[in-house]
This record gives sequence, structure tokens and C-alpha cells, in this order.
Amino acid sequence: MNFLNEIALRFPDAVSFAPGRPYEGFFDTGLVHDYLRRFERYLREEKGFDEAQVRRTLLQYGRTKGIVHELIARHLELDEGVTADPESIVVTVGCQEAMFLTLRALRADERDVLLAVSPAYVGITGAARLVDMPVLEVPAGPRGVDLEALARVARTAREQGLRPRACYLVPDFSNPLGTSLDLATRRELLKVAEREDLLLLEDNPYGYFSADGERLPTLKSLDTGRRVVYLGSFAKTGLPGARIGYVVADQPVADREGRVGLLADQLSKIKSMLTVNTSPLAQAVIGGKLLAHGCDLRSANERETEVYAGNLRRLLEGLARHFPPGCGSGVTWNVPRGGFFLVVNVPFAADEALLEVSARDHGVLWTPMRFFGRGDGADRQIRLSYSLVTPAQIDVGLERFAALVARRVGEGVACAAP
Amino acid sequence: MNFLNEIALRFPDAVSFAPGRPYEGFFDTGLVHDYLRRFERYLREEKGFDEAQVRRTLLQYGRTKGIVHELIARHLELDEGVTADPESIVVTVGCQEAMFLTLRALRADERDVLLAVSPAYVGITGAARLVDMPVLEVPAGPRGVDLEALARVARTAREQGLRPRACYLVPDFSNPLGTSLDLATRRELLKVAEREDLLLLEDNPYGYFSADGERLPTLKSLDTGRRVVYLGSFAKTGLPGARIGYVVADQPVADREGRVGLLADQLSKIKSMLTVNTSPLAQAVIGGKLLAHGCDLRSANERETEVYAGNLRRLLEGLARHFPPGCGSGVTWNVPRGGFFLVVNVPFAADEALLEVSARDHGVLWTPMRFFGRGDGADRQIRLSYSLVTPAQIDVGLERFAALVARRVGEGVACAAP
Repeated sequence: MNFLNEIALRFPDAVSFAPGRPYEGFFDTGLVHDYLRRFERYLREEKGFDEAQVRRTLLQYGRTKGIVHELIARHLELDEGVTADPESIVVTVGCQEAMFLTLRALRADERDVLLAVSPAYVGITGAARLVDMPVLEVPAGPRGVDLEALARVARTAREQGLRPRACYLVPDFSNPLGTSLDLATRRELLKVAEREDLLLLEDNPYGYFSADGERLPTLKSLDTGRRVVYLGSFAKTGLPGARIGYVVADQPVADREGRVGLLADQLSKIKSMLTVNTSPLAQAVIGGKLLAHGCDLRSANERETEVYAGNLRRLLEGLARHFPPGCGSGVTWNVPRGGFFLVVNVPFAADEALLEVSARDHGVLWTPMRFFGRGDGADRQIRLSYSLVTPAQIDVGLERFAALVARRVGEGVACAAP
Repeated sequence: MNFLNEIALRFPDAVSFAPGRPYEGFFDTGLVHDYLRRFERYLREEKGFDEAQVRRTLLQYGRTKGIVHELIARHLELDEGVTADPESIVVTVGCQEAMFLTLRALRADERDVLLAVSPAYVGITGAARLVDMPVLEVPAGPRGVDLEALARVARTAREQGLRPRACYLVPDFSNPLGTSLDLATRRELLKVAEREDLLLLEDNPYGYFSADGERLPTLKSLDTGRRVVYLGSFAKTGLPGARIGYVVADQPVADREGRVGLLADQLSKIKSMLTVNTSPLAQAVIGGKLLAHGCDLRSANERETEVYAGNLRRLLEGLARHFPPGCGSGVTWNVPRGGFFLVVNVPFAADEALLEVSARDHGVLWTPMRFFGRGDGADRQIRLSYSLVTPAQIDVGLERFAALVARRVGEGVACAAP
């Protein structure tokens, strides 16, 4: 992603469909103060803490597994129908630390491998690289995960003496594809995981941002066999600047002495050697936001959800206007039902060189799908992110993108104009 | 350390000389709000940011290397006489993440090993375990580091086909010993590091807490050959609840393509896969505190320094009263010139079993030195931490400790009473 950051710095006036950052229009630093005070009140009134305990909780070193675990459990019950033991929750420095902790715990030696639905979020491949854990790609296919391929990859790995430990995926409005697994696929996936003895690492940063109001149950809420390690993030639903994520790891595991405990406690031990504990001040900000909204993140994000849905509609309308069927541009795209991303297929190589041309000559940035894996067709695919742009930027950005396409496809394609 | 935490929970009324946590008497949650506002003002007035930029800096995803690097550079110039390029600073989630990043960068394969002055802070051995990097112990000896042993350990490792990459130490008021390297030893250590081609990982959480006002130059300030990677922490001088540390890594290093850059940029790449970035909100709290004190942490910590110095005096006086020379108790101790810790030598095994007895029957907690390494004599050594206790607790705690000693040493030692 360094290439993307560099190019964004070099062309600051380009319209950027690249970053998967949340909308900034409702940012308000005053709320941070309100949230901190709200969390202090909770410590006093709900937890019965005296002033010294309140100060110690916010300002001193703290519990390795975190201090907002009970509020997260409330939120999961309310928003997800997931009943999680607060002791099974580890509050982390963003979801990225949760991924690292989980992979580090699952990796005992060089035989342990991770499966990941591909194209995959770069954060998981990065974390896997840090713990020296190879990643075997499982194609997403038309259903969001190719279940036959999943079983095949796991079995082939076992035949080679490897130990496939888990499969990572984003079932809701995935990054980078924007697609979601339907309910039947979710249920089947849980069965395949059971049969192949795999954990599922369910990453859900975008699930609240449904564009049409429909929300499918998370894998974790369908999970009766503790197959799912649930990776949560408040970067999109809370505040990115707090850097608070978490992991629900309610799997029973034995330690070296054979004592059975929660996977969460193994993650906690690793965390004590990695970051000691997550800033209680940063946790308090998220805790305060949860409390301010009755731990209901769906209602807390109504305005944002509307913005993203509106942007998605505008982007889809713009693509349809610039590249109508039969116009010969060869440009097609998927139609996600929510989230931050969609994918455009183009009839030419969409690589770093083209991105450079696009930025320099046309003033528009996007992400080559190649950055997310080696899957078929990725060379001619582009991820467009619509979370951080305004409607006006979407219009201008698409016009510029259409000009890039016209230049590549050739003058013959006259319809690529609005 | 889990055993210590467990025993502290089981005996909440015990006086505890165990935790190395900073004094809580000056904690004030109101200051957090002041610091946040102070940092906002800095962004507006010194950096020239408009309101949208201020909001984005605090609330959005941010720069991987952090946003308080320039203030840290000012502080290092002012308090340490260290001129650090802000680009060589990576702001981390506590010093623990800085250690992890550094070791992960230094560890290319299983031949890379870390040297550490022993007894050593458990954080460094934990981080080394996480990156699968063996730790070779270098005895502290009477000077704080045994320089001949350091060279010998490094050479022996090389003869065995290993690559000793760095030596970790706390030159000022070390954890767990409380001792400091004198100036001559610091200079010689730098020469040995040069000769043996080792980096020095200088960890300095306690340097500001000199009990007699004397402050020796850090290794980094004496380092002309970029041998020192400087590990900084605001947990004791700032606010533990912010979880902000940093590393100055100004060493030139080549990446895989042979391009030379700063070690800090390699650490930044690793950080992007570990925690993405350190909470800008938490950084802003520390940034605000730095600004509120003109980036001078010595003056910012005058009150705390006085508390720690007073506690050290009281502890030393109490030890002298309880265990006067020639009384036959066999109890001796070192006399640190600052910091949080001192070490007591006892004429019996100071292990987990004795700690259990001490907590249950005598109501006093301490840390067996065995937790910090395998060095000679550690079996009969105890770390007493005096940072979190009140003077009254020191008195009561020492009385209880003297009762434990009397029981162990035998009735014959009548002088072990105040």
C-alpha cells in the first residue's frame, strides 16, 4: 500500500477512490470529551467505582483484556444476537492487533497455515507475514467463498503435512470485493469448517452499512460449535482515531500444562508481550460512544449508513451513465448491497503503471485489485472505494475515470461520455 | 507475572512492593481534557491546520509513525541533548510495541539472537519470545553491565554460527536492579558495541526520577556512531493510560531492493501490519502534556520525582532500622540513586512458595528476582518497588517483611524489630 500512499501524496488534487477510510463529515472533537465523561459516569454509577478507582481505571496501566468488554458484550447481544461471555473478549489496538494475536496463537510451528478467501484484505496477509504463517488462497467465487475449493485447499494442505488452522473472511460487504455471503452459504460454510476442523476468522468492519436495510446474521450468531473467532472493529462504527478493535475468542483451549481455558486468555498472554494493554483512555472514548447510544451501533451509525448508501447509488448510476450496456467499453462492475467498496472490470491491465497515468493525466486514484491477491482476472480489476468521497467528487472522479477508459479502449468507444 | 497478579487479587489487603506502576496521587482526569485542547491549539496555531485538518488528525486513521514525533524530538533535544530527526521516531503503543517492532526488524531468521543485561525486564524477554529470538544473558555485574562478558557472549554466539544483533539494557535506575551505569562504563559500552558490531537497545523509562538530582547522559546522547536504538516511554513521565511510547531508530538500513532508508521506516512497515497506527487521540493527550510543560519532562515530573525520592529514603531508612549491620539477619540491599526499585538479598530462598507465605501470613507482596533471569544469587533476592506505595504503607510493609524474615531466619535474630 506504500505505492498508493506515495501516489496520493504526489497528486493531492486527484479525486481518490482509493482509501477505505470512513466518512469525515460528522467528525466532532467535542464529542470525544462528552464520551470520556459519559464513560466516567458509567464507572461511578453502574460499576460503583469511587473517584480514585475512576481515575485509576482511566489513567493507570490496566486490565490486559480491556475495560469496555462488558459494553462490547451488550452491543453484540443487541446488534448481533450474539451472547458473548465478556471474559471471552479481548479489546485490541484496532482490529489489526486482534488479527495478529489470533494468528500468533494459532501458529505453533512452520506447519501451521492460514486459509484466506481471496482477494483478501491486506491486513490479514500482513499479520500472517509477521508471524511467518503462509496464507493459502481460497477463491471467493460467485458466492463470496468457494466452499468446494475451501475443502480442497484444506485437504491438499493436510496431505502435504501442513496444518490448516483457520480460514479468514469478511462475510459482509467484503474488502475488497464489496460482496456478501447469502444465508445458505453462511450455514454451509459453518458445516464445512466443522467437517474440515477449521476455525473461521470472521472480520466484520462493514456489516452495519447495509445500503438496502437488509442485514444477514453474522457467522458468529449462527455458530453453535465455537468455530468462529469474531474480529470486531470500531474504526468505522466508532471513531478511527481511538484505534479500538476486539476479538471474541470463546474457544476452549489447553495450555502447555494441559489446563483448559479460553482462547481469549491465550491472546491476552500474547498481548501482554506486545502492547501490554490497550489505552484505557482510547477505550473510554469508544465506551462512552457505546453508552451514548445504548450500545446500539446500528442507530449510532444511521447518518453514516445513509451517506454510504447514497454514495453507492450515485456511483452505480454514474457507472451506468458512463458505460451503458452495449457501448463497447468493455467495462462492467458488481453491485454490492452495502459497505465501502465495489469492483470494476476493465478490458486492459489495471496495474501500478496505469494508476500512475490515471493520477498524473486524469486526476483520479483507485486501487488495483492485484494488491489483494493473485486470483483470476485481478489484473484487469479495480477497487473503487466510495466511503470518503462526496457526491460531487464521485461525479468528477467518474468523468475522469471514463476519460482514462476512453483513452485505453480507443477512440472508437464514443459512448463513454456522460 | 500472572502468578503475581493472581496473588495480588487473592490478598487485596496486603501491602504490595510488587508493581512497577507510577504514583497515582496526582492523577486528574480533568487534565486529559486540557491536554487534548492544548494539542488541538498546537495543530491550529503551530501547524497552521484548519478545523477539518484538526478533526482529521485527531479522529481519522493517521500517519503510521505517529503525530507527536516533532514534540518528542523537541523533548529529546531539551531534556537529553539528543538531536533526533523527527522522521527517525516511531510513536508506539507503549514502549512494549517499540521493543517488539525493533526485535521483529532485527530478526531475519533463527540465527539472529538478542543479548540482554541480566537480570532483565520481563517485557524484553516476552517480546523476544514472540518473535522467536533467543535471548543470551549478559551479567549486570557491579558496574551495571559486565563488558568483558558482553564481548565474550557475543563472540561465543558468533562462533556457534549465531548472529548477535543487539544488547538490551536499562542504563538508568534499571528494572529490576535499580542500578545505573556510571559515565565511564557508558563510554566503554559504546566502544564494545562498536567493536563487536552490536546495536544497543537503550530503554529509559526511569531516567527522570533521580533521587539526588544527578542525571547522567543517556547512551543515545553519547552515541556518535548510530549504535543506539533509543526506547522511550511516557508511561511513567506522561500518563500510563495513554499507552504511548516511542523508538528513535536513526540507523541507515537497506531494504530488500537495496535502497537505503532509516530503520524507523522498517519499523513503520512492521507497525502497519501490527497496529496500523497508534491512537492519535492517545497521542494528543501526551502531546498536550508535552506542550503544557514546554516539552520539558524533567520539570513536568518534579512532584513525582520528589515522591519517589522520598519513598526511596523512607525504604532505605526502614531497612536500616529493621536490619542493622551485625544483627545477624543476613539481610542486605543495594542503594539505588533513583528510579522505582531496589533489591534485597536474603539468606533463604525467595521463591513463589515464600511469596505465597508472605502474602497469606504476613500481608506483604514483593517480586522474586528469579522472575527476571537465571543470574547467580537471584534465588535469594527480592525486588522491592516503591513507586506506588505511600510512606505509611512502606512502614507497615517493612514491618511485615521483617516479621517474615524473622520467621525464616529464626528466633535467634532479635534485632529484626524496629
